[in-house]
Amino acid sequence: MIYKVILAYDGSNYAGWQKQENALGIQEVIEKALTTIHKKETFITASGRTDAKVHALGQVFHFEADKKIGPDRYKMALNALLPEDIRILKVSMEADDFHARFSAKSKRYDYICTYEKENPFVYKYKEILNHTLNIEAMRKASEYLVGTHDFTSFSSSKIDPRKPRIKTITRIDIFEENQDIRFIYEGTGFLRYQVRMMTETLIMVGSNKIDIEEVKRILDKKDKSACRYNASPNGLYLVHVNY
Amino acid sequence: MIYKVILAYDGSNYAGWQKQENALGIQEVIEKALTTIHKKETFITASGRTDAKVHALGQVFHFEADKKIGPDRYKMALNALLPEDIRILKVSMEADDFHARFSAKSKRYDYICTYEKENPFVYKYKEILNHTLNIEAMRKASEYLVGTHDFTSFSSSKIDPRKPRIKTITRIDIFEENQDIRFIYEGTGFLRYQVRMMTETLIMVGSNKIDIEEVKRILDKKDKSACRYNASPNGLYLVHVNY
Repeated sequence: MIYKVILAYDGSNYAGWQKQENALGIQEVIEKALTTIHKKETFITASGRTDAKVHALGQVFHFEADKKIGPDRYKMALNALLPEDIRILKVSMEADDFHARFSAKSKRYDYICTYEKENPFVYKYKEILNHTLNIEAMRKASEYLVGTHDFTSFSSSKIDPRKPRIKTITRIDIFEENQDIRFIYEGTGFLRYQVRMMTETLIMVGSNKIDIEEVKRILDKKDKSACRYNASPNGLYLVHVNY
Repeated sequence: MIYKVILAYDGSNYAGWQKQENALGIQEVIEKALTTIHKKETFITASGRTDAKVHALGQVFHFEADKKIGPDRYKMALNALLPEDIRILKVSMEADDFHARFSAKSKRYDYICTYEKENPFVYKYKEILNHTLNIEAMRKASEYLVGTHDFTSFSSSKIDPRKPRIKTITRIDIFEENQDIRFIYEGTGFLRYQVRMMTETLIMVGSNKIDIEEVKRILDKKDKSACRYNASPNGLYLVHVNY
């Protein structure tokens, strides 16, 4: 049986989805819980990794299991075994060819910034802004990023150079929400650090530190060293994976 | 000069207001920052202590200083030196007889419970409920607690036995707020653990585990061992101190 699992997590206390040296990864915490349930080593495959401190509202992974345990029983058992900052939202049985990464059609990431400088509860969950951002300028700049492009300029040097850098972004929305600014990104896939680098570049535009066309110039360079901007992981959420 | 400071903090990472053995207290973090600003050891006095993991939206402390630094400069300097989970909201200069504890007329504490079991972001900030609470029953039971009473039954054994146990509660409100239940307590003062013990007792009523009159029976015993219930610190907020 192939099981698909949708989960949410507070990434603050983790080294990211994948285990790092001397630091706990979310994947290993879940594999340990499933291994306990199955009394047999179990591995999981996610839709993609999230970096250290990045949060998820709708990450997806799959695993294979011999015994047929009902999806609701998996959900209950996992939530009982997992720490409170990792919560299983839904478990379902899928066709044998379901694969959390390869079957994914698109993803949504949100990035949240806030003007709430005096709120001690937000710093792990939102990027704190020191000055007002120009939303209209950021929206105009974001239009250069929507569509199918080679996003090499907005990627990490850690990316495998053989992997394709051409991705399609179908939507970027930027709007104010009370004292926050929310950036919504939807696309077929994202390179490592791409959302954070695009966001920080847009924030530079919104801060009048670079002009709107600079976004296009950076994109056109198709060069890993073209963009020096990278927003903190705290404000980033993997919201949804679409299959 | 006497300075009054209003501050908010996320208590999750602290042993409480006061330092514990091998654990960081909020007070010492602030005293260290003021000592850096003054280049001279500085001590502060709070309206009262908060326990480990308890949060504050409006805690108050005072300190004395020789040099006349403007309140806004204190606020900026402290927020620059303090960690992001402690934020200074307001600094003001007060008359020489102002005392954060002795001048306090009343306090407000809120306690927040939630039905959001599948939200990985709330567990440090709200008590997670496993079943529906009967709000009307809790409201009726809370009426026994409003007024001037000897609250020995709702107090910690750690309390100095010479201290008065008679306190006046002027308001208890209990209401639903989206998926949360908020308890509001206002009174002239509260004993150690009093709010958490009253809250857990009311939750027992709301869960149909004890009857409404049991609250009066516990109160009337005036005995430290009369109440076995104590809500977790995570849901508790010192909201406001009134002078």
